[in-house]
Amino acid sequence: MDKSQVIKRFLPANTPTPDDQAEAFAASNIALCKYWGKRDRELNLPINPSLSVSLADLGTRTRLTPIEGKKDKIRLNGKVVNGSSSFATKIVEFLDLFRSSKAARLQVDTHNSIPTAAGLASSASGFAALTKAINQLYGFDLDPAIQSAFARMGSGSASRSIFDGFVEWQMGVREDGMDSHAVPFEESWPEFRIGLLTLTEAEKTVGSRSGMQRTLETAHLYQSWPLQACADLEKLKQAIRDRNFEILGQTAEQNALSMHATMIASWPPLLYWQPESVATMQRIWQLRESGVCVYFTMDAGPNIKVLFEAGQQAVIEQTFPQVKVVSPFACQTPVASG
Amino acid sequence: MDKSQVIKRFLPANTPTPDDQAEAFAASNIALCKYWGKRDRELNLPINPSLSVSLADLGTRTRLTPIEGKKDKIRLNGKVVNGSSSFATKIVEFLDLFRSSKAARLQVDTHNSIPTAAGLASSASGFAALTKAINQLYGFDLDPAIQSAFARMGSGSASRSIFDGFVEWQMGVREDGMDSHAVPFEESWPEFRIGLLTLTEAEKTVGSRSGMQRTLETAHLYQSWPLQACADLEKLKQAIRDRNFEILGQTAEQNALSMHATMIASWPPLLYWQPESVATMQRIWQLRESGVCVYFTMDAGPNIKVLFEAGQQAVIEQTFPQVKVVSPFACQTPVASG
Repeated sequence: MDKSQVIKRFLPANTPTPDDQAEAFAASNIALCKYWGKRDRELNLPINPSLSVSLADLGTRTRLTPIEGKKDKIRLNGKVVNGSSSFATKIVEFLDLFRSSKAARLQVDTHNSIPTAAGLASSASGFAALTKAINQLYGFDLDPAIQSAFARMGSGSASRSIFDGFVEWQMGVREDGMDSHAVPFEESWPEFRIGLLTLTEAEKTVGSRSGMQRTLETAHLYQSWPLQACADLEKLKQAIRDRNFEILGQTAEQNALSMHATMIASWPPLLYWQPESVATMQRIWQLRESGVCVYFTMDAGPNIKVLFEAGQQAVIEQTFPQVKVVSPFACQTPVASG
Repeated sequence: MDKSQVIKRFLPANTPTPDDQAEAFAASNIALCKYWGKRDRELNLPINPSLSVSLADLGTRTRLTPIEGKKDKIRLNGKVVNGSSSFATKIVEFLDLFRSSKAARLQVDTHNSIPTAAGLASSASGFAALTKAINQLYGFDLDPAIQSAFARMGSGSASRSIFDGFVEWQMGVREDGMDSHAVPFEESWPEFRIGLLTLTEAEKTVGSRSGMQRTLETAHLYQSWPLQACADLEKLKQAIRDRNFEILGQTAEQNALSMHATMIASWPPLLYWQPESVATMQRIWQLRESGVCVYFTMDAGPNIKVLFEAGQQAVIEQTFPQVKVVSPFACQTPVASG
């Protein structure tokens, strides 16, 4: 089943006349239980469920404006993007899924408040913001769960960025994937903090899309990954209900390291870590041994995201002067806003 | 079943009168398919078979001399070792397995030509040399396979150090473990080289004994490890028969990284790597991308063992000026000598 078939079934029969303009924001998200491995590469259906927390005002704001002409115009952070670049191609292909061939071309203005690549998942907030903006522009009035399933077809983790706060991406069982979408949690956790440590801004040499495919095909150890992820998901949900930061931190850290373990066990070996990543992990473990309740998570990149509560912020900032601290629940925005 | 019961069954009914003195050498060994996880912690019976290559003249030479008195005297590299240290205790407990209570005490002189700890498996060559020396001193005249099974009870990988060259440690199925011993290969490979890179001489904080136990108990990913190891063993045996260095190197490197992956996926995380370990791996991968046929393996420590053939020695020594190059087959010693 291809994306276009699935999407057409859930859209109004005719693409409605677009508004003059639409604009939407989606927050980036950090997975505490990672998405790693696809059971369907066309629809981005995952092998395991995942769980994330959104990054407040760090994310993507996208404006869509109908224009005359034969081509879409894409701008990223104010600069025109070459139409043949992979960035522009992905956006145009995604837009094509939602408009009839007669539909007017669009100008797409995208602003990221996070560095592109380097493990901060701009594709997640990017496709989520784009999906929300499309929904608005054409007045589709889609249910947020359907928007989440649609965003997933752009980038798997974008399904989670449709919502704010803690979010579970249910893996689903349907062949068309429409039950594979995110669901937001009711719980908030005002003291929850994420410290972003950018150890290098270099773009990674192997993207997470091909990285997870290599892992799946070559790492024997990957066979046990879904087991780890399912166990971690349940522990995390319970930790959120109980507001037990220690369990949450332990589970998230082991989950991230287990994901990296499957990469390290691949061939050729997939090691996203730099020497600085190891030094930073060691520093965090030392802090923990000295009694500070701090954990970390990592995505498919060398950077580290420190997990802690408000009470530890001073010691974290002292240890890592370059840290950027995010408060996911400080000014809660309504679920599925935009 | 305990060690003493098993050993008693395979020794002459009465401990023979010891010779005046006995001396034996055993080479250290580097596993190309790692031993990681025990199905029996008393007898050191492994969860998976393993395969190693011996390190020529790097190893342990041990001399046993009967002495008067109530206590054994242990010397390591010429220095007297405190009788209550864990090093001395392990040796005395091992000696006790082989002598009747009436037997005279022994002086044990052990010389390591490799640094103790830091991942160069001195316990492997240590217990292998001790087993050979005991066999000589008491004139047991044990089959080398039985010596290998006995050495295993001192330290698992010591079973492999009874032999030289390529060696397989068959995991066995018997409850008393007597079919869990090493078997040497007929094949030699004169161009085979191992480059030892000592990145740090610091003793490791978690020994491999407790490290493998933690992995087994806490890492979901460990469940797939025996699968990886068994597949790798077959590939390595074929590569040795075919003298295919590329397959041998790839398999050994993926095997080592998969073992480390199981550690990284444990809780608390078990990371033996230092920042220098990552930098060195990256350097080796760069070399390989530039066309040099070079691979590596790592044990439960931060150091790296580079695998290559004679033709690449110049470029390896140029890249890593501190490397110590070992030629496992340069002056082949007879199998099970001692």
